[in-house]
Amino acid sequence: MRNQLSAAASLASAAPRIGLHRSTGPSRAWEIRTVKPVTYTVRLVDDLFGLNSTDLVKAGQTQRVSRIRRFVVLDAEVDWYHGDRIRKYFDHHNVETRFCVIRVNEQLKTVDTLLDVCRQLDEFGINRRVEPIIAIGGGVLCDVVGLLASLYRRGTPYVRVPTTLVGLVDAGVGAKTGVNFGEHKNRLDTYFPSSHTLLDRSFLATLDSRHISNGLAEILKIGLIKDLRLFELLEQHGSELIETRLQAGNALDAVAVEVLDRAIQGMLEELQPNLWEHKLERLVDYGHSFSPLIEMRALPELLHGEAVTVDMALTTCLARRRGLVSRRDQDRIFATMRALRLPLWHPVCDPATLIAALRDTVRHRDGLQRIPLPLGIGQAYFANDVTDDEIAQACDDVREEVCRA
Amino acid sequence: MRNQLSAAASLASAAPRIGLHRSTGPSRAWEIRTVKPVTYTVRLVDDLFGLNSTDLVKAGQTQRVSRIRRFVVLDAEVDWYHGDRIRKYFDHHNVETRFCVIRVNEQLKTVDTLLDVCRQLDEFGINRRVEPIIAIGGGVLCDVVGLLASLYRRGTPYVRVPTTLVGLVDAGVGAKTGVNFGEHKNRLDTYFPSSHTLLDRSFLATLDSRHISNGLAEILKIGLIKDLRLFELLEQHGSELIETRLQAGNALDAVAVEVLDRAIQGMLEELQPNLWEHKLERLVDYGHSFSPLIEMRALPELLHGEAVTVDMALTTCLARRRGLVSRRDQDRIFATMRALRLPLWHPVCDPATLIAALRDTVRHRDGLQRIPLPLGIGQAYFANDVTDDEIAQACDDVREEVCRA
Ligand SMILES: NC(=O)c1ccc[n+]([C@@H]2O[C@H](COP(=O)([O-])OP(=O)(O)OC[C@H]3O[C@@H](n4cnc5c(N)ncnc54)[C@H](O)[C@@H]3O)[C@@H](O)[C@H]2O)c1
Ligand SMILES: NC(=O)c1ccc[n+]([C@@H]2O[C@H](COP(=O)([O-])OP(=O)(O)OC[C@H]3O[C@@H](n4cnc5c(N)ncnc54)[C@H](O)[C@@H]3O)[C@@H](O)[C@H]2O)c1
Repeated sequence: MRNQLSAAASLASAAPRIGLHRSTGPSRAWEIRTVKPVTYTVRLVDDLFGLNSTDLVKAGQTQRVSRIRRFVVLDAEVDWYHGDRIRKYFDHHNVETRFCVIRVNEQLKTVDTLLDVCRQLDEFGINRRVEPIIAIGGGVLCDVVGLLASLYRRGTPYVRVPTTLVGLVDAGVGAKTGVNFGEHKNRLDTYFPSSHTLLDRSFLATLDSRHISNGLAEILKIGLIKDLRLFELLEQHGSELIETRLQAGNALDAVAVEVLDRAIQGMLEELQPNLWEHKLERLVDYGHSFSPLIEMRALPELLHGEAVTVDMALTTCLARRRGLVSRRDQDRIFATMRALRLPLWHPVCDPATLIAALRDTVRHRDGLQRIPLPLGIGQAYFANDVTDDEIAQACDDVREEVCRA
Repeated sequence: MRNQLSAAASLASAAPRIGLHRSTGPSRAWEIRTVKPVTYTVRLVDDLFGLNSTDLVKAGQTQRVSRIRRFVVLDAEVDWYHGDRIRKYFDHHNVETRFCVIRVNEQLKTVDTLLDVCRQLDEFGINRRVEPIIAIGGGVLCDVVGLLASLYRRGTPYVRVPTTLVGLVDAGVGAKTGVNFGEHKNRLDTYFPSSHTLLDRSFLATLDSRHISNGLAEILKIGLIKDLRLFELLEQHGSELIETRLQAGNALDAVAVEVLDRAIQGMLEELQPNLWEHKLERLVDYGHSFSPLIEMRALPELLHGEAVTVDMALTTCLARRRGLVSRRDQDRIFATMRALRLPLWHPVCDPATLIAALRDTVRHRDGLQRIPLPLGIGQAYFANDVTDDEIAQACDDVREEVCRA
């Protein structure tokens, strides 16, 4: 509610200046001011590919058409496990489809992959107003298709169906798209959310448990910075959630739904007022101050969420030394990380590396640290005064903690 | 003024819905609504590279910095003629520069060219908040750099210095960027205006006169649809404008400035309220209903503005037959086209081709013709009822007119 009000207020003050403003006086100059409206929806649905469900065929269908056509980009791994039911679904609804099945991983998250999909899209041909592209896959696939959609004929609507937990709570619900280029992760990227995101957890049934844990790390992050109840759900049910893979039809069903629901709600609350990241103080950057360099140095050992957890363990210790997190809360946090089968530590972490990591981050945050630090569990603030000594001490603390366990 | 008011009004009605809206009821769904503010400036300046001018070094410089650095993408042709003064300028202002000189033409307007520039940009490295990319060249170069800027690290500010007349009044002042892909012109493209466009007509001194005429075609378009005075300036001074290349320091100086000023004002008035082209009825599409296919079929014989003129001659006849343009006005229009050394006709134009061209256009305009048709000189309206017969007759009319001359 607060977000809605402040966004509306800032809009109201911006409104009178919208337009074409010609400078008066002898100099011939113009200022063009406008706003681009962006709207998208995210929905949790069960059984998206059940034959009776019309959510997917209807998504982005802005007009009645005589023949439904869809270009469907599909993660090869997902095709292997779920291709049959996906194809049956489109057949059942009489959709003329072209499946573009692609292998994806970080190494294949490239311009070449994007252009390959583009070529197939050109071959099939779409009416971009009524035939949204459909992306079914993990974060990599969603990011590549999202970037293509943002470029294709100045923006073509697309629908995301994320199939990993990272996709369900993070990559699939935000606005960012991208591919890697040269040495750099997501160097070519845009903000271009899918018009519709449909979240069906049934895909997680075939995801290996390490990738489940990887997604739970981002959920834990939301719990730690802003949602005590979400943290407690993970604390109480962490390992069972991994075992049941957040599926329907078991004793943990309701918990799984609440966890997803809270994680997505928390994430969207943070994203909506700052979709283009003009504000550099972002709570969702928790765990992302030290982790980029940790992840890179440890390559290919740590998944993204694992590196984020190592960062969260470190900053938890740092906050405890500042008296902002109690010893008891630290123990709860670490126990939960362990239950989620996430690492608290990695051998590349030494004070020098961590200090270098923070230096990089400060550069990207326009000269200030802006480190989200926990205040107990479920709240956070932004610190700009973390010293090298504090980092070294926190580093020792985690190492000891890990050895002790 | 009207534009400002209506934009503000529509914003005000949108404002209350900005925010994160959670659907009530059992279904778990969210709607994210926000707006992205976009602002950019366009300025006519003389002697941009005069050593005393600081417009270019200051453009996009949002903070004081100890060392000014700029990545400058330069059209090889422009480098040949103007490279010395450009380099002297940056040296004089102590700017650490990396020049990325690229050859450009329609065939080189590709993803490969874009990635080549991207690689060099990565090598140089920039702080995207204070070191905008500078693009100096014609429409092709501006479009390629604009697309790269829109993708590079989720949007990197850039400054355009167009060096052709098409660049000065069209490609450099709008929001579109792009590269060609496969068979398709501008298939991969975005809306991403440069934060600053600086228009210095001195570059036109070295542009061949056919490209001057090519730019004058787009200016003529603005005159015909919305600015009688602009048309009259072209009518009275057309051939002298080509001879003097719109340069300063001669008897036609004031006319050249007024022509540029009116053309840009007219263009921006149409673009500002419809920057993302959600509205498909666009006056600036005048001359662009039949020309895409004409241009393609005639390849490589017609420049874009030449094909647009062929289209405008055709639609002028069509409007005359409807009684919307007088014979006298038609004569004035055709005489002006000739004075501007623009073709009224091309052998690929026959009724079948023109009818096919319109069919393509209707598809891109969501099922309606929406053809801007002139009402006398300086006004236009949108027609949705042009028949094949009318096209065939207009086609005959222009052909006769051309033979008679
Ligand atoms: N755009 C954003 O806001 C955002 C947010 C977070 C992460 N990301 C990006 O997402 C990527 C990571 O996403 P990810 O963790 O989903 O990785 P991923 O897309 O590489 O998927 C992980 C693996 O699981 C496979 N897979 C996908 N769905 C499956 C299923 N249902 N069953 C079995 N296997 C399945 C994939 O083929 C892949 O091998 C990174 O590139 C990251 O940059 C983007
Ligand atoms: N983004 C838009 O809104 C928009 C609008 C109109 C056109 N365009 C695009 O612009 C392109 C056409 O632009 P253009 O007509 O400027 O063509 P161009 O960029 O190809 O330039 C024409 C030729 O002139 C050379 N040149 C440029 N400046 C010169 C100078 N000062 N002196 C001598 N030679 C010079 C170029 O090297 C080139 O050979 C097309 O690709 C079209 O799609 C884009």
